[in-house]
Formats: sequence, C-alpha cells, structure tokens
Amino acid sequence: MMMNALHRQHILSSDQFELETLDALYSTADMLRPVALGRQYTRILEGAVLASLFFEASTRTRLSFDAAFMRLGGAVSHTTGVEFSSLMKGESIADTARVISGYADVMVIRHEQENVIHESAKASLVPVINGGNGAGEHPTQSLLDLYTIRSEFAKQDRMINGARIALVGDLKYGRTIHSLIKLLSLYQNLTFVCTSPSHLVCPQHYIDIAENAGHRIEVHHDLCTGITGCDVLYATRVQGERAGGDILNLEDGGDFCLTQAKLNAHCPAHCVVMHPLPRDSRLGAQDLSSDADQDPRLAPPV
Amino acid sequence: MMMNALHRQHILSSDQFELETLDALYSTADMLRPVALGRQYTRILEGAVLASLFFEASTRTRLSFDAAFMRLGGAVSHTTGVEFSSLMKGESIADTARVISGYADVMVIRHEQENVIHESAKASLVPVINGGNGAGEHPTQSLLDLYTIRSEFAKQDRMINGARIALVGDLKYGRTIHSLIKLLSLYQNLTFVCTSPSHLVCPQHYIDIAENAGHRIEVHHDLCTGITGCDVLYATRVQGERAGGDILNLEDGGDFCLTQAKLNAHCPAHCVVMHPLPRDSRLGAQDLSSDADQDPRLAPPV
Amino acid sequence: MMMNALHRQHILSSDQFELETLDALYSTADMLRPVALGRQYTRILEGAVLASLFFEASTRTRLSFDAAFMRLGGAVSHTTGVEFSSLMKGESIADTARVISGYADVMVIRHEQENVIHESAKASLVPVINGGNGAGEHPTQSLLDLYTIRSEFAKQDRMINGARIALVGDLKYGRTIHSLIKLLSLYQNLTFVCTSPSHLVCPQHYIDIAENAGHRIEVHHDLCTGITGCDVLYATRVQGERAGGDILNLEDGGDFCLTQAKLNAHCPAHCVVMHPLPRDSRLGAQDLSSDADQDPRLAPPV
Repeated sequence: MMMNALHRQHILSSDQFELETLDALYSTADMLRPVALGRQYTRILEGAVLASLFFEASTRTRLSFDAAFMRLGGAVSHTTGVEFSSLMKGESIADTARVISGYADVMVIRHEQENVIHESAKASLVPVINGGNGAGEHPTQSLLDLYTIRSEFAKQDRMINGARIALVGDLKYGRTIHSLIKLLSLYQNLTFVCTSPSHLVCPQHYIDIAENAGHRIEVHHDLCTGITGCDVLYATRVQGERAGGDILNLEDGGDFCLTQAKLNAHCPAHCVVMHPLPRDSRLGAQDLSSDADQDPRLAPPV
Repeated sequence: MMMNALHRQHILSSDQFELETLDALYSTADMLRPVALGRQYTRILEGAVLASLFFEASTRTRLSFDAAFMRLGGAVSHTTGVEFSSLMKGESIADTARVISGYADVMVIRHEQENVIHESAKASLVPVINGGNGAGEHPTQSLLDLYTIRSEFAKQDRMINGARIALVGDLKYGRTIHSLIKLLSLYQNLTFVCTSPSHLVCPQHYIDIAENAGHRIEVHHDLCTGITGCDVLYATRVQGERAGGDILNLEDGGDFCLTQAKLNAHCPAHCVVMHPLPRDSRLGAQDLSSDADQDPRLAPPV
Repeated sequence: MMMNALHRQHILSSDQFELETLDALYSTADMLRPVALGRQYTRILEGAVLASLFFEASTRTRLSFDAAFMRLGGAVSHTTGVEFSSLMKGESIADTARVISGYADVMVIRHEQENVIHESAKASLVPVINGGNGAGEHPTQSLLDLYTIRSEFAKQDRMINGARIALVGDLKYGRTIHSLIKLLSLYQNLTFVCTSPSHLVCPQHYIDIAENAGHRIEVHHDLCTGITGCDVLYATRVQGERAGGDILNLEDGGDFCLTQAKLNAHCPAHCVVMHPLPRDSRLGAQDLSSDADQDPRLAPPV
C-alpha cells in the first residue's frame, strides 16, 4: 500500500505527503486507535529504540512520541537540552546525529535552528523525524491536525474541499500553521483566512504554496472579521519566546483574545475549533480563552 | 477486596486511607516483594505508560516510581523541571494535566506549590498521584513509612496501638511527617512526641487531626528529652531550601544532631529509628549523624 | 568461562581486566552484534533496571548504555545533572548510591570528581560501572576502543603485539587515553607515541604502567613527528571544559589540527585512525579535521 512511500524515509516537512499516502497513514492510525487509548497492546516495536532529542522545550510533542513508541512495545532514549549533550563541547550536529544513529532505529529532533534537522538527516544512518524546527515546520503536528479535521468533518458528513479555514494568531512564527497550510493545500478550492496582527502575518512562501495550488487567501487583522463564517477555526498563541521584539502589543495589534462570546457571535454551529496547544492562559493573554472550554465545537485534543 | 477502594482513584493525601484499605494494600506489597527485589518479573503493566512529572528535585521518589512501574512491565515518560515543559509558555496546569492524561495511564507529580496537584487531578482523565506538594503532603512516602513500622513491629511481636512516636526535626515544612501523622492517627492511643526547634513546630492542623482521633501530643524543643523512651524515632533533616528565612540557628534552635551517643543514652533497644531521606551529611548538619549508620535499630531503607 | 570473573563485579578501572577476560567479553560482544544492530532481539534483561546517573554532560556514553540495556530487554531510569538530585540538599554520595542500589540492578555513573564513583561502589548493594570520572578513567570506552583495534587488525591479519600506537592530543586530562594505555599494556612489545602540547603531557602514572609492562614510550610535541609510521592513531580533542587554565595556545602548543593532508603525508595505508568523540569541529579547533571524514583508514564509530 501507499504507506510504503514512507518506509525508512525521513519526515522533515509536510511537503513530502500526498493524499494517497495520507489515506494509508490515517487508515493505520484508525487501526491503532485501541492501542493509543490503552485498550490493546502490541509488541510490534519490541527491541526498537527511539532517540528523542528535544533541544527546545516541549511537553506534548515529546510525550506523544514517548507514549506512541512505548505503547507499540519500543523503548525511548532521551536527550533534553543542549547543556547535557556534546554540542557544548564544539561537536558538529553531523557528528552527533551520525553517532546517535548508530544506537537508535529512528530519531525525533526539535531544535530552535531551522537547518539543524536537515543537517542531522543528511548525516544519520536512520530516519529522522522533525519534531519542530524553529519558525520552520512541525509536520507531525500537522498530520495530527489534519487527522482531527478529517474526523470531525466525517462526523458531520462534510467534505474538506471548499471549506473556509480561519488561521488565527501568530502566523509569522507559528510553525504548526506553516505545516498545516502545506497539507491542506492538497485539497481543493479552500479559502485560507489569515487573521493576525499586522506584524505577525504569514510568510509569503506559504501564501504562495496555497495560491499555486489554486486556493483563495484572505488577510485580516481583525479577529471578529477573520473568523466570521469559517468551517475550521485554527487558533494559536503568540509565541513570545520566539517573537523577539515582535511582542504582541494591544494598542497596535488589536484584540486577539478568542472568547466564548466571539465564538457565539461569529462562528457557525458546525465550525471545528482547534488549537495545537500550549495556549497562554495568563491574564490578558491573546489566545483562546478558557471561558470557551465547554463549547461543543472544540475538537477533542486526543 | 478493599483494594477496590483505590481502583482508578487519585492518591492526593493520606486522608483517603482507612485501615482496611491499608491492610489490602500491604498484602499486595508483600506479594510483590520478589518483584521489587528483582527475583521475579511480571508483565502485569505491559503497554501501560506512567507520566512522571517532577517539577521539583527528587532522586528516591522519582526512581522508586520508575523501578516499580518498570519491574511490573510498564514504561515511564519523564518531565523534570519546569524549564522543559510548556508551563513557561503561560500554559495553565489544567491544560498540561489534561493533555498528558491523554497520553498516559497514570501520572505522578511533584510540585513546590501545594495546590498544583489538586488542580491537575481535577483536569486529568487518569489517576494522579501526589509525589510531594510543597510543604503539604507526601502520601506515598507515608505509605512506605507505615509499611516499615508495621514490618519492624511485627518482627518484635509488638502492637502499634499505644506506641510512643518521636517526630524529630523540621515539623513545620516536613511533608512526610504531615502525611505520616494522618496515617498513624488511624491507630489507637498513640503518643506523638513533636520535637523541633521552636520556629519549626508542627502546624496546628495536623496536631488537631491527631488529637481529634484521641491521641496524645507532647511538644519538646530539646532533642534528648523528645526522644527519651520512644518506640519509633522518625528523624528528618531541616529542609533549608523550603524554610526561607527560618534557617535553623544553632543558638536559637539548640542541637538537633542525632548522634550514636544520644541514641544510646535515650532510646530503648527495641526502638525503630527511621529517616525518609535525604539527610544532610555536611559538617555541622542538624540531622541524623552517619556515625550511627551501624546501629541495629535503624530500619532498612528498602 | 572467564566472563565469570566479571559476574556481579563493579567496573571501575581498566586495571581489572586480563586478556582472557577480554577474550570472553569480546566473544559475547560478537555474539550480540545482531542485537546491537537491531536485527535480532532478546529479552535476557527483562525486568532488570539500570540506574543511569550522568552528573556530567554526555551524549554517546549515556545513549550507548541506554540502547544496550533496552535492546537486551531491560529498562533504564535516568538522573542527569546534580541540580535534580538530592545531592544539592547535602546528601552524601554514599547515601545516594545506597538508596539507588535498592531500586536498580546495576548503575552507571559519570561524575566530574574522580573519587565519587569509588565511594558509590563502596556504598552500593549492586554493581557500579564507571562511565567516566573526571580526569581519571573511562573503562567502558577503552573496552570499546580495544574491540575496534582488534577488529580492524583482524581484518588486516595483523597482530597487536609489536604495534606502534600514536596517542594524540590532550593526554593530561584525556581519560579515555588513560584507560586505553592500561588495556593495551596487556599486550607485548608496543610503542606508545605520546604526542601532545608540552603542557598536556600524559601523567607519569600511566607512563609507568606501560613501561613496567615492558613497552616503549616516545614523547613528542610535534604532531607530524608523532604520527609518522604509526599502526594506530588515536586522536582526541582538547577538553577545554576540564583543562582550566591549560587552554591550548597555538603559539605555545603548536598545530594539532589533524588534516587529511597530514594523514596522507605521515600515516601508512594500513593505519587505523580512531577518535573517541566528541571532536571539536569549530573553526580553528585543534582536533581531527572533518576534511578527513572520507579517509578509509577511519575506523567505524560503531
């Protein structure tokens, strides 16, 4: 089947997937759902070792790889934080990746520099998975996001083709959005409603990908206008730690706090509301408000 | 059996145990002793994932959960230190706990803030175990401590009811003592001899629990007086990192260095001497002295 | 067989091995090669727990123990960095080791202080493996290095006895070299060519061991002279983080950048070129240059 297209391949970007590959991948995911839920167990990965290298903070991506590999019978070896690796001794990323690939069967890497994962893949003897590279991509998150959209649309007997997709928040540094635009561009006749403060707009590179695939792009800087009538609302937090000087300023950036009231006023009943998490729940945060946590339109996080 | 009382329950406080539940729990512990000692192996937890979240320093509690879960066939996914979690990105503990509970079958949390573990339990889909919450409680340590007391008393054919229990050291911030007072209060006719510097006395809340259960309380600020004639001597270190300004001062606080000479002078031959560890072995430390390490009254640490 | 000599023993120094023990050990290693390569799987360590304690930075040693133990069916519990252990609360290393030995079946420790691992071994109930102790030894690395030398010489139908071994770089603090000198001294009639800047010469203690075993020692401070005509070239980086004030100074120390050109000019075609890694790949580093990465004389890192 088309899963063979992924056999022993690096997973570096959402670029590398086609719809047929995704169909095969999601069929496998459906089949493994009982394992993910802890209701069944398999030893298919017995004896296999995942090297989990998170040089940048992560909770959910790191734990989700742990749980997936462990529930399939494999074992995980971790390196978290550059201060406990040999990189601080002047070792090149190529040397590190080459050596680790001698111990592990596969490795997942998150790194704040966009190019490190590609350099690792070049040096590695085993497949490398991009767990998030700086402001670049986050392909496995986008695979999960599309899986959620497909599942929610299937429940409603709706097609993804033709949908209106509101992308909200920090579109400049939001790598999950960058990867999701690429994946969704495989469908037809979508409208991407890019809704962000004016200093955090989506890079032209991703806009071009969507337009070249025949989709429509709308750009808004007002939250309520952007989310009106959308079929999917994909909300993100402003990633302060990456934004540098571009911290969201209320006067300049407007109000990006997505409350229950705004959802009720502007989003249809069938809308699928998603968030890759983490979200900022501090007072005054410009993010999805927890006052909407009981809204039935929120797609389940698992 | 009464273990059913714990099935899929959070373990947040020593409050939640009754003697019948403890009997069932310790019977199970006895049964699993060969596994704990590495002489037998079971796969009863195969496919299960423990999320181990230690946001505060820990060696023995963290490793004991690791070893227990692994020896029963399960796998462990770790997060240590807030700097490598999403909490620093403004995520609420409720979001973190809710998401992790989607990946794991159970989670153990240590956190310096007393309320974080209770908030996590509210948000989690799976059982949460308190691995120590600030100056609050440490229920699993107290389960182990009571297991030790029961075992040592059984060797001597003695009853716990009626015993004289000397609690020594930092009773204000010592969460293992707080949890142990609650558990021991399930027995009858005990005397708790609270022995601490005057600025580190046991909070009234725990005194009330013991007194309301019909036990006697004595309060001493002199070590030798406090330990005289006790059946159990439970020693703790002064937890400098939590005490803030309340650092033990030799002039004010007296001498709390528990030496072999003091044990010989004041404690009976049948006394059970315990320490939850870690102990401070630095010069001048106000803690159990290592000169007593060969004393046969020391209960085995495992 | 002679492996019994290692049964339940600490591994603290290369001192403790004899050639017969090494033969048995390497026979076992050969037998387990398919497991190391992930082609076969065994559950021989099922139920066993390795406590992995790296109080000093490590990637390859830590991951190699992980992978070895996991591929043999065991589980690994980690403590990395003193800030997350109880040592910062004033606990003695003896207490820490004693307690951990109650949870684990074996422990591997790396620590910047030379004596900590020996103190741990004294207190532990289970075998302790030295994973690198300060500027002391690194016995498991030397076991691997000798395994590589034996394999490469066997491919060429050459004997180790009589070989010319160039040891290059930081011989003062390079613990892998210290351990390797001890192991190689078990052979006969070797010439150790100690080649380092004048302020980073090999400690006399190790020179004495080699000379007392009947080997020849040459000392050079010029790289090209040192490597000329060698059968083994063992290169190391200058370990800046341990060298203190002894940072390699180009004016004083000469040129220790080992380039392809120098290898071609001075080393014979049969020479086995090795490096324990990590190597410093920064501009101007005094280490094995990556311009030689395709040289067929480089022994495989795994």
